[in-house]
Amino acid sequence: MLTLPLDGKGPLHGQTYRALRGAILAGRLAPGARLASSRALAGELGVSRNTVLHAFERLVAEGYATAREGSGTFVADSLPGRRRERTRKRGQSARLRLSAVGRRIARDLPARGASWSLPREPLRFDFRYGEPAYSDLPLETWSRLLGRRARRLSVRRLAYQPPGGAAELREALAGYLARARGVVCDPEQLLIVQGSQQAIDLCTRLLVDPGDTAVLEEPHYTGFAFCLAAAGAEIAAIPTDADGLRVGELERVPRASLACVTPSHQFPAGGVLSLPRRLALLDWARRSGATVLEDDYDGEFRYQGQPLECLQSLDRDGRVVYVGTASKVLFPALRIGWAVVPPSLVRAFQDAKALTDTGTASVEQLAFADFVAEGHLERHVRRIRRLHAGRRAALLEAVDRELGDRGTVIGTAAGLHALLRLESLSARYVTRLRAACRERGVGVYPAAPFYARPPRRAELLLGYAALSEADIRAGIRRLAQAVNELGR
Amino acid sequence: MLTLPLDGKGPLHGQTYRALRGAILAGRLAPGARLASSRALAGELGVSRNTVLHAFERLVAEGYATAREGSGTFVADSLPGRRRERTRKRGQSARLRLSAVGRRIARDLPARGASWSLPREPLRFDFRYGEPAYSDLPLETWSRLLGRRARRLSVRRLAYQPPGGAAELREALAGYLARARGVVCDPEQLLIVQGSQQAIDLCTRLLVDPGDTAVLEEPHYTGFAFCLAAAGAEIAAIPTDADGLRVGELERVPRASLACVTPSHQFPAGGVLSLPRRLALLDWARRSGATVLEDDYDGEFRYQGQPLECLQSLDRDGRVVYVGTASKVLFPALRIGWAVVPPSLVRAFQDAKALTDTGTASVEQLAFADFVAEGHLERHVRRIRRLHAGRRAALLEAVDRELGDRGTVIGTAAGLHALLRLESLSARYVTRLRAACRERGVGVYPAAPFYARPPRRAELLLGYAALSEADIRAGIRRLAQAVNELGR
Repeated sequence: MLTLPLDGKGPLHGQTYRALRGAILAGRLAPGARLASSRALAGELGVSRNTVLHAFERLVAEGYATAREGSGTFVADSLPGRRRERTRKRGQSARLRLSAVGRRIARDLPARGASWSLPREPLRFDFRYGEPAYSDLPLETWSRLLGRRARRLSVRRLAYQPPGGAAELREALAGYLARARGVVCDPEQLLIVQGSQQAIDLCTRLLVDPGDTAVLEEPHYTGFAFCLAAAGAEIAAIPTDADGLRVGELERVPRASLACVTPSHQFPAGGVLSLPRRLALLDWARRSGATVLEDDYDGEFRYQGQPLECLQSLDRDGRVVYVGTASKVLFPALRIGWAVVPPSLVRAFQDAKALTDTGTASVEQLAFADFVAEGHLERHVRRIRRLHAGRRAALLEAVDRELGDRGTVIGTAAGLHALLRLESLSARYVTRLRAACRERGVGVYPAAPFYARPPRRAELLLGYAALSEADIRAGIRRLAQAVNELGR
Repeated sequence: MLTLPLDGKGPLHGQTYRALRGAILAGRLAPGARLASSRALAGELGVSRNTVLHAFERLVAEGYATAREGSGTFVADSLPGRRRERTRKRGQSARLRLSAVGRRIARDLPARGASWSLPREPLRFDFRYGEPAYSDLPLETWSRLLGRRARRLSVRRLAYQPPGGAAELREALAGYLARARGVVCDPEQLLIVQGSQQAIDLCTRLLVDPGDTAVLEEPHYTGFAFCLAAAGAEIAAIPTDADGLRVGELERVPRASLACVTPSHQFPAGGVLSLPRRLALLDWARRSGATVLEDDYDGEFRYQGQPLECLQSLDRDGRVVYVGTASKVLFPALRIGWAVVPPSLVRAFQDAKALTDTGTASVEQLAFADFVAEGHLERHVRRIRRLHAGRRAALLEAVDRELGDRGTVIGTAAGLHALLRLESLSARYVTRLRAACRERGVGVYPAAPFYARPPRRAELLLGYAALSEADIRAGIRRLAQAVNELGR
């Protein structure tokens, strides 16, 4: 007789049902075979006869078995494909064919991990980029606003939302972006997205065909590179300097679909795109037919000179998609970002957003709209800009004091990170340097993943937004010790 | 002399700066031209000389102007592209070239509006599909859980999240899905997404190339059709009946990349895929090389017969991507969904999710994990299943009473909606019927958008989850009046 092991989970009739079903599916009970009587099975399994009858009923209802009046219960004849199953073990996975997009993602993404995807360790002095300082955040205010909106949601807000985003948030953001960043737009042009990465993805999908040329800064934000790789773009890597993208070199790119740029604070090298270059970039875009994706990921934080208004505000031609994010002004896990889209692309972006995920979650949108409209955002940005300025100064002083000529900090006119070039250290030693830092409780991250052609000198990306000034000083001191040790 | 209109916004030096900048960018102040002296401008504008000097300084800092010691301030020479701007008016938008994906989206999406994208009107008896009943929702509990998690977020939770989703939610959902839906999976196979639509989009991007064949049920969920259209798939439309997809007809599809199916409750026609068909579908998938996307969008709500376990639980070959959503068990605007992915595809899905939006917002994920782990979800589902059963019964009775032979309700063994076929009414009259209903405060929605070839009889999709039994009765009575009126 068959042994039917019960799995011990839940009511006995469920266990009995699963044991029988398992035996049928595994082929241990053959198609057409008569099941043992309910009495016999009850005895074998140590359950009541009613329990077995209940399981039989369910098997019949689901088509695993048929009941023939007076002659008992039989395994169904018509379970196609079952015989073959016997030869395959559970978990033996078919090799599924990926699309060209899928193959490009599988090939290109794992090869180029961004610093924020590096494994997380508990380090006292972690210069990981993209971390907020817990103590800086107005979490009390945020959770109050979130809770208030969550409690007061109307049924209209609970159902599917307009793909472009909540009207309140678009209105509030249009005002904020005009005041803070000089963005010129109608709220209709705003698309609320799941963080700026989604805006980058939508841009790439809507504008870049396989084989098209796309312009990428060198070094560049890996989020651009991932999307362009998935789209199958040919990359034109244009170098950057202290004034940002070297726009003159665009002349060797006569046609392009998309140019992904970070004018306010070049990521990660930190240059601020000068005004003549801004205008030249727009001029090139017009001639080459390109759309310009302006990622203004940390434009709120500028410490030297006057704030430059964004590229979008200079665009007379409807070629700039301006992208911003709440990740730097609040926190990344919020996943709220925005795109300001030229009028000619609004419909396509809304449709693409609709098919991607139908729209962004409403409670966060509404709470963030309150956060902006009630002035919390601007107050918070002013406050953390001061704090970040102090941290930045601490970093610059500490590097100067501890590393002297061996270290050059670049790109700190704005933003929440710096690039540290270790003049005395070859790029080959970065892994060992990181290990030596880790032993000292210091987390540092290589800049190499942000380059198409990594530099020969060791470069580190130092995020300083999450550390106190004292911790920045102590961390850089330990980093310098590690550099010295390697130097020997 | 130039007239420089101040815009009246903010401090005077900002107004002065903007007025001058505008004149420079518009070409009214020519490249190289000397600006009027600060004294003269101050007089003209009625502001202090210091205000003008402040504006000059900013223009120089930003590169719009240059200061020559002793001889004054001049418009910069090097503003390329400016002359051409004069000929273009602001808002005159370039025609930007869309990618093939973009063109397919622009062509196919607007032509096929889903019922939930139809304009929203305040109607007393609204049978719109996808609406939750406000009064059913445990919003008190939900906002408490959300607020608790929002207040207690650690810095780790505020930064970028693992693209697959929060470990707590994957763990809690794996347990829930095993208990409630028979899903067999490891938490590692779970991917948390922005609602099931994102899972559909990821599947399509990763698995379907332009020109590939994809299987779609007829009628079908438009969310599938949108993504397949964007991917450029050739659609094989397979009819459905009371037992769901007519799997036998798949024999005419020897190769396919993806089959999008709704086995628990065919959307929108309501058939439940029988067990023999489930097994035959898996067998066909194996032979044709297809991945099966099982959208179990409302599998929790079943009113007749035993619940059938999901297709994924029968899959021995790692070919099924199981997709579920919180939209029906909680509310759509939450934007939480999940995909259970075969082990061979886990990495590709995580990478694709990472480049799409880096990951789903963390607070909701953690609050929803609590909602599941603390048993609220199962309690809530039990409770609303009872309520929905009552509404479903009210609908069936009302249609029978009010419409008799003129109406046939199909597909109500499960789910939150029914398809009403109006036997006496041609599909041509649906628009007039909807208008007549609207006048009576009744919202009804055409089923035609869900068909590749709409039926000749009028069919309506009736969502009943958001209405009380009394309102369902009253709404159907009014609908019947409108049908009668049209019949005359």
